[in-house]
Amino acid sequence: MTVTDIAIMGVGKIARDAHIPSIEKHPGFRLAATVSSSGGVEGVENHATLDDLLAAREDIPAIALCMPPQSRYEAARTALAAGRHVMLEKPPGATVAEVQALDRLATERNLTLFATWHSRYAQAVEPARAWLARRTARRARITWQEDVRNWHPGQAWIWKAGGVGVFDPGINALSILTEILPVPVRVGAAELEFPENCETPITARLELKGDGGLSVLANFDWNHEDPPTWDIEVETDDGTLRLSKGGSEMYVDGAPQDVGDTGEYDALYARFSSLLDTGARDVDLSPLVHVADAFMLGRRKIVAPFHD
Amino acid sequence: MTVTDIAIMGVGKIARDAHIPSIEKHPGFRLAATVSSSGGVEGVENHATLDDLLAAREDIPAIALCMPPQSRYEAARTALAAGRHVMLEKPPGATVAEVQALDRLATERNLTLFATWHSRYAQAVEPARAWLARRTARRARITWQEDVRNWHPGQAWIWKAGGVGVFDPGINALSILTEILPVPVRVGAAELEFPENCETPITARLELKGDGGLSVLANFDWNHEDPPTWDIEVETDDGTLRLSKGGSEMYVDGAPQDVGDTGEYDALYARFSSLLDTGARDVDLSPLVHVADAFMLGRRKIVAPFHD
Repeated sequence: MTVTDIAIMGVGKIARDAHIPSIEKHPGFRLAATVSSSGGVEGVENHATLDDLLAAREDIPAIALCMPPQSRYEAARTALAAGRHVMLEKPPGATVAEVQALDRLATERNLTLFATWHSRYAQAVEPARAWLARRTARRARITWQEDVRNWHPGQAWIWKAGGVGVFDPGINALSILTEILPVPVRVGAAELEFPENCETPITARLELKGDGGLSVLANFDWNHEDPPTWDIEVETDDGTLRLSKGGSEMYVDGAPQDVGDTGEYDALYARFSSLLDTGARDVDLSPLVHVADAFMLGRRKIVAPFHD
Repeated sequence: MTVTDIAIMGVGKIARDAHIPSIEKHPGFRLAATVSSSGGVEGVENHATLDDLLAAREDIPAIALCMPPQSRYEAARTALAAGRHVMLEKPPGATVAEVQALDRLATERNLTLFATWHSRYAQAVEPARAWLARRTARRARITWQEDVRNWHPGQAWIWKAGGVGVFDPGINALSILTEILPVPVRVGAAELEFPENCETPITARLELKGDGGLSVLANFDWNHEDPPTWDIEVETDDGTLRLSKGGSEMYVDGAPQDVGDTGEYDALYARFSSLLDTGARDVDLSPLVHVADAFMLGRRKIVAPFHD
């Protein structure tokens, strides 16, 4: 197997907890460098800026962008313009239009662009998709509740405009929903609660609809005492499916199903490796479109200030 | 020339002021029926519901949907499912996802779907596009100000979630901008002012960016004493272009340009006629994507209540 040198830009929690271990485990990748202004990873060459990396290491063909979404576009554009393949952490950008622009650029340059949705690689998601493909979904309910204080301690960017607030975890649920349902959905109504000292919502309730009378209720709550709940339940004409723990467990009419035990980011890097092998792109914007649509047509409610 | 029977659904101000006169003027169309629960147009067959029309008049191949965007999806889907060609007033829907779904359905059924942006047919827009195509745009400024009390008197739907507020006129500017600029743009920052008794914004300021350093400032203001201003100014490496009065007048370095005098809706129905002739679709979502993006990353500010 060819080994692809890869660089990571943005060495925060998600890079350390998920990307770096999966890169080290995958025989097709070698972590060749990092880009971080605040120091990288022990034993790995670090560059303070992306431009420094691109100038110093023309031999590194692939870059994973793991910084907050607000600054992802410029970095992705710079990397693609320099001829590098790019992986984007979720959400793939701060706007729909900017990811569409990156997709066009990658297409023009014939480079791989992988807009990842890591939750789609949770082990029960593919079995759930296969199970639903043979049935008619009538109703679904998403319950995505966690205590932001425990899961995003001190991450100020999530409360700034462009950081999407509770949709940061909620978009994981939407990425699973859009993967497993056999029909497309659209947001029909939404209500978003904004803490009066924040620019992004702390809770969101969405009603989504699909053709054929499918109705989905989603409840995203960042102000919920742990333990967290990350569940999706789908009622069909032939039984009820439940995905639990963010897509890692699957139940049919209450009975647990055998779904294997591959880790999300291991599967995600396996996918990136296969995209690189075939020169393909994987850019599905539907989860981000649903979030933008929810902001556009949602009712806004101002609630009590949030303090970390 | 074959004459196409067309029906209009939603007989409000825009239908009476614009659609019906242009249909009557165009030799390729005949207004065969209307759909309105509150009465139609004198001398034209009216049906109370779309289902009534579809059942009674299988011979009408094309339907123009002129009602507010919140209910447009269901009607468009029903009409397409019944094998009719569809024209959508702007904005083409309440969400990006629903128009994408309509586009897929029209493609599957091999029907014409025309998501119109009437301002793109203002007489100076095509000359402006041609002028800019040979130059490099550096900076642009959109000034779109009007008194909503005069232009949308008593239209309650514009203040309800899903009605997009000041983006209802503002999206006209965005539809022109995205038509005339030779490079795509994306929203980089936005600030939206919501009256405390309304679900939609009354003013919006957007910063858009395009590759190559292009920067666009857009100022949408619905709380501005008339006379209105609907101007777009673009500074290039070779002169400054100004579109005035919603795209009907064009100036280069202050000098007025000859741009003809075709009316917007006359040109729009000419376009629909040619799409029907060739069985083509015309669905460009970029103006709506920019609005959704502005809602998603915009800062919200609550301002004084609005009273009509």
